[in-house]
Amino acid sequence: MSTPFDTLGPDLVTTDPDLVASYARDETALGVSGGAGPVAVVSPRTTADVAAVLAIAHEHRVPVVVRGAGSGLSGAASAPEGSVVLSTRRLTRVLEVDPDERLAVVQPGVVTGDLRAAVAEVGLFYPPDPGSVAFSTIGGNVATNAGGMCCVKYGVTGDFVLGLEVVLADGTVTRTGRRTAKGVAGYDLTALLVGSEGTLGVVTEITLRLLPAPAPARTLVATFPGLAAAGAAVAAVTRAGLDLSMLEIMDRTTLDAVDELTGMGLGADGTPAAMLLAQCDGEDAPAVLERMAALCEDAGAEDVVAADDAAEGEALLEARRQALPALERLGDWVLDDVCVPRGRVVELLEAVERVAEQEALTIGVFGHAGDGNMHPTIVHDAADPASVAAATRAFDAITAAALELGGTITGEHGVGRLKRDWLARELDPGAMAMSRAVKGALDPLGILNPGAVLA
Amino acid sequence: MSTPFDTLGPDLVTTDPDLVASYARDETALGVSGGAGPVAVVSPRTTADVAAVLAIAHEHRVPVVVRGAGSGLSGAASAPEGSVVLSTRRLTRVLEVDPDERLAVVQPGVVTGDLRAAVAEVGLFYPPDPGSVAFSTIGGNVATNAGGMCCVKYGVTGDFVLGLEVVLADGTVTRTGRRTAKGVAGYDLTALLVGSEGTLGVVTEITLRLLPAPAPARTLVATFPGLAAAGAAVAAVTRAGLDLSMLEIMDRTTLDAVDELTGMGLGADGTPAAMLLAQCDGEDAPAVLERMAALCEDAGAEDVVAADDAAEGEALLEARRQALPALERLGDWVLDDVCVPRGRVVELLEAVERVAEQEALTIGVFGHAGDGNMHPTIVHDAADPASVAAATRAFDAITAAALELGGTITGEHGVGRLKRDWLARELDPGAMAMSRAVKGALDPLGILNPGAVLA
Repeated sequence: MSTPFDTLGPDLVTTDPDLVASYARDETALGVSGGAGPVAVVSPRTTADVAAVLAIAHEHRVPVVVRGAGSGLSGAASAPEGSVVLSTRRLTRVLEVDPDERLAVVQPGVVTGDLRAAVAEVGLFYPPDPGSVAFSTIGGNVATNAGGMCCVKYGVTGDFVLGLEVVLADGTVTRTGRRTAKGVAGYDLTALLVGSEGTLGVVTEITLRLLPAPAPARTLVATFPGLAAAGAAVAAVTRAGLDLSMLEIMDRTTLDAVDELTGMGLGADGTPAAMLLAQCDGEDAPAVLERMAALCEDAGAEDVVAADDAAEGEALLEARRQALPALERLGDWVLDDVCVPRGRVVELLEAVERVAEQEALTIGVFGHAGDGNMHPTIVHDAADPASVAAATRAFDAITAAALELGGTITGEHGVGRLKRDWLARELDPGAMAMSRAVKGALDPLGILNPGAVLA
Repeated sequence: MSTPFDTLGPDLVTTDPDLVASYARDETALGVSGGAGPVAVVSPRTTADVAAVLAIAHEHRVPVVVRGAGSGLSGAASAPEGSVVLSTRRLTRVLEVDPDERLAVVQPGVVTGDLRAAVAEVGLFYPPDPGSVAFSTIGGNVATNAGGMCCVKYGVTGDFVLGLEVVLADGTVTRTGRRTAKGVAGYDLTALLVGSEGTLGVVTEITLRLLPAPAPARTLVATFPGLAAAGAAVAAVTRAGLDLSMLEIMDRTTLDAVDELTGMGLGADGTPAAMLLAQCDGEDAPAVLERMAALCEDAGAEDVVAADDAAEGEALLEARRQALPALERLGDWVLDDVCVPRGRVVELLEAVERVAEQEALTIGVFGHAGDGNMHPTIVHDAADPASVAAATRAFDAITAAALELGGTITGEHGVGRLKRDWLARELDPGAMAMSRAVKGALDPLGILNPGAVLA
């Protein structure tokens, strides 16, 4: 099949149906589908190649879906019919790491874990650590404004993006932002592009702010007999202003699954209702975690364990790292990503319990307690339409509960195609109109990832 | 004189020429003028009042210039002919301070220093501290994305804005952002509005992220016989990743002026070429400042003094606080605001020295060494056209030097009307086109602060 992109040559373009099909969707469940799917995959080697792709797409009005690792969970990289997938798989260079200015310049296809390792070699630290850090790309992280476990102390991807090189809808190459620590020249186009999920431009280079490497983190784990006690501990820790670099939570369903997978013995004396995992990477970490231990005990913790060393800390953290793999073993899964005010996490967890009971589904919850960002994970049978329907109802009920609690429909995964119909339930008509106006201004032909973010 | 705003009633609207004239300009020097100036000043009491003002302005195509304290230094609040000035002077309520969620909700007319004091009462901390903190408003700070001395550790105003209530060009009231710690639902309209200097909407409510109050800061001062030595100290401190909450610099011209004003005796043994002032508010402040002292001595510091207590620290800091008042006493002044990569601050200071010599002007430099954000302050005689011409040439030469050093035309004061012709020298044509497209999309009639930011 011939496409307008064939002029770019077979090195950059493939229309092989099997290969194209393998690029058609990201990791999103619940039937976010590309229908007949894309017609071609282009894999540019340079910014000029990207500009050429966009110029052709613009001329022929072909939808363009940018794709990093394809590990997204909201369908932003699920390519619609007739589109071209623009893969960043060859744009994988770390162009610069500057220890004096504490910045790095990278191409979008660099795996985030590799980036973290590259800057660590010169004593620097790139904090954002989404769960997918070992395989997702920095370009995908920028597109979704990804978070992770670090956010409670360090913030999200966007907090570290100083500037971008971006190819606009018509193929124009431009730069936004700066290399300086501060700067307010004109509108913050960088922040507008971060989190825009490939709908406003294609990012081809990212200038990232880095931090000095922190002290090695110390780890503390506390278990609770009830959700309310865990919630009280989180509230007390937050109110005390403890300098934690991680504050994660797992519920009983997740702990049972992790126990089954790892045999860690988390439920030796009966699985606790919830477990908190905290880290502190400050100079006074022992004192901070001692205060946290006391606050957890005051809140009714069953068991509080501080790691003696980094290795033991890593072992404790492994339980959290295995949360999703453990739940995955129970069946097909769909991962929600909602964020509520910190003080209402317990109410969200209670709502999830009610939904699980009502729909007779297993729903494990884990997430970033320090931010209120939770990942209820709905286990179901994708081959059974009734189970899929129940999972869909549960997903909707949980997302609605988050909104009712003053929260947001997405804390860090993005809107994509999965939640585009939800956006107007969170934003008011004015903000929706602003969003559409911005989209229309920057992509008047609507070729950049149409159907993502805005319905 | 009658205006379309008269229907709002005399409580909200004044056309008294003397009062209107007093609202015509902000604190910007160098002939940024409103020409014949605005026709009316409106002082809304509520968001609904603001919406009514915008609806009338939209219908009658009257330019609207929002004004906080009028202390801006880039002419963003210098009102063009025929415009209406929308003053936030009555929108001064702190609506909410929530210690559990660590956020505050405020109206734009709250003075930033008052806001800091209000949240400090419940043990919380709002970091941004522009030099104008005692009189500028949080709305003005949001409009310019203001910075201050805290930025080296804590970032700028925008880093603390979670959400906004904003009135759009046609009078529509909308909300952007969120109250949760994280959230990526849709485009980051909040970040787009922050720093847009009243050209995209009128902010009527601001939700701010707060931090736990830090430990009391400790202070260290070091003097250097030459700029290069001071620059080497800054580079060493940055490379060491010291946790400083302030790192300021003053040059000899500024130190001489401060000495003359305060009699502090800074130049008792000959004024040093530069002084660094640092603070650390971390738990391990004494150790951090000890390391800093050693790095300064290695770099060739003449004198290194650590404050024994908070009172002595305040006394040392007073020299920095008096920098602008001291330079103001020497004549009329224009304050530049450029930011260069940290490692090039010395080159900027040397360029300023050359410009001062060439134009036979006194130019003092002080600023935020930790960020590379410098404020060269050009002393001249505003009554002497030749002196004004020389000051203008000096201003242009310094701003150009910052760009040549890889910096930005404005670190924290904004573009306003003063630097609107400079914007296209910093941004490339693509970014300029994006900016114009966004402006056109959100303010199609061009009534929101026309002539600011974009020429």
